[in-house]
Amino acid sequence: MKKSIGAKTLLYPAPVLVVGTYDDKGHPNVMTAAWGGICCSKPPCVMVALRKATYSYAGIEGNRAFTISIPSTAHAKEADFFGMASGKNTDKFARSGLTAAQSDLVNAPYVAEFPVVLECELRHAFELGLHTQFVGEVMDVKADPEVLGDDGLPDMEKIQPMLFAPESRKYYGVGAIIGEAFSMGKGIG
Amino acid sequence: MKKSIGAKTLLYPAPVLVVGTYDDKGHPNVMTAAWGGICCSKPPCVMVALRKATYSYAGIEGNRAFTISIPSTAHAKEADFFGMASGKNTDKFARSGLTAAQSDLVNAPYVAEFPVVLECELRHAFELGLHTQFVGEVMDVKADPEVLGDDGLPDMEKIQPMLFAPESRKYYGVGAIIGEAFSMGKGIG
Repeated sequence: MKKSIGAKTLLYPAPVLVVGTYDDKGHPNVMTAAWGGICCSKPPCVMVALRKATYSYAGIEGNRAFTISIPSTAHAKEADFFGMASGKNTDKFARSGLTAAQSDLVNAPYVAEFPVVLECELRHAFELGLHTQFVGEVMDVKADPEVLGDDGLPDMEKIQPMLFAPESRKYYGVGAIIGEAFSMGKGIG
Repeated sequence: MKKSIGAKTLLYPAPVLVVGTYDDKGHPNVMTAAWGGICCSKPPCVMVALRKATYSYAGIEGNRAFTISIPSTAHAKEADFFGMASGKNTDKFARSGLTAAQSDLVNAPYVAEFPVVLECELRHAFELGLHTQFVGEVMDVKADPEVLGDDGLPDMEKIQPMLFAPESRKYYGVGAIIGEAFSMGKGIG
């Protein structure tokens, strides 16, 4: 018998996404968001949900662009810092010692030291309540050669991305491989 | 120097979400989706993105409701099967041997054997291209007592949810804890 927990955002796991934007003075900023995910295959789109109170909000709207840098567990402290400080009064790149790289496709910066980045053009902004959902079309994905597999695509075991557990507010790493999708269920029925 | 991978939906990790709906005859159906995530805190909302070609699409629109059951790795085969077969010609509950439970809050079924379920009322349907993004307000979360921590909330280490790697199409489990969010970044700057 299941127990009622209440109306909460308890989806497991949530990703750890570092959203990159320029502010109205052209200064690079980043913030960490766990409310986000893939939302369309064609065109390839991802969404991040931000509160209006964040400094990044105006950066996305003003430039109609953002990046998503995927931190590896090696940079967990920096990723967490990016989710606590505000770009309004903090130069998060300078404070963390990480490098703001300019996307060559969209008007937004990304974290050079993080292994994978998605460069996105803003397509939709849906106001849902406390959060506004920004849907970006992925114009390109760029990745460090070290995290690519034999097929030339990023390999999750090499990226070592972080996971976030809502409510308990803990970060986890990726565990062991379970199996191949669209394959391991074939034996059923 | 990062390498260009192309315009792809490469966000790491993606979740493994089992979406529950009734069809127009009232038969319970489930499908597995990895395009989804949390998208608002107040009201608490989650989104799943489905292609119009899926059998579940009409089920969500017709009932203005859906559930999201979170499978644990112990049911990886069933979760994968739910993403391959179609409810149009397959009774996935009967074939998998899993149980369709009726939500007491929304007009949608969920998988009784999966440890956590979110019961959602449809609030928005945003057509983005190949996928339509269904935004649901979470009316309640229900969880098995076995996966609750000392704080009465679900514990990710007990749920043992699955992760999905886009493109490589592999499932992974959750790994070791890295640290506390809004805490481990405090030492920076």
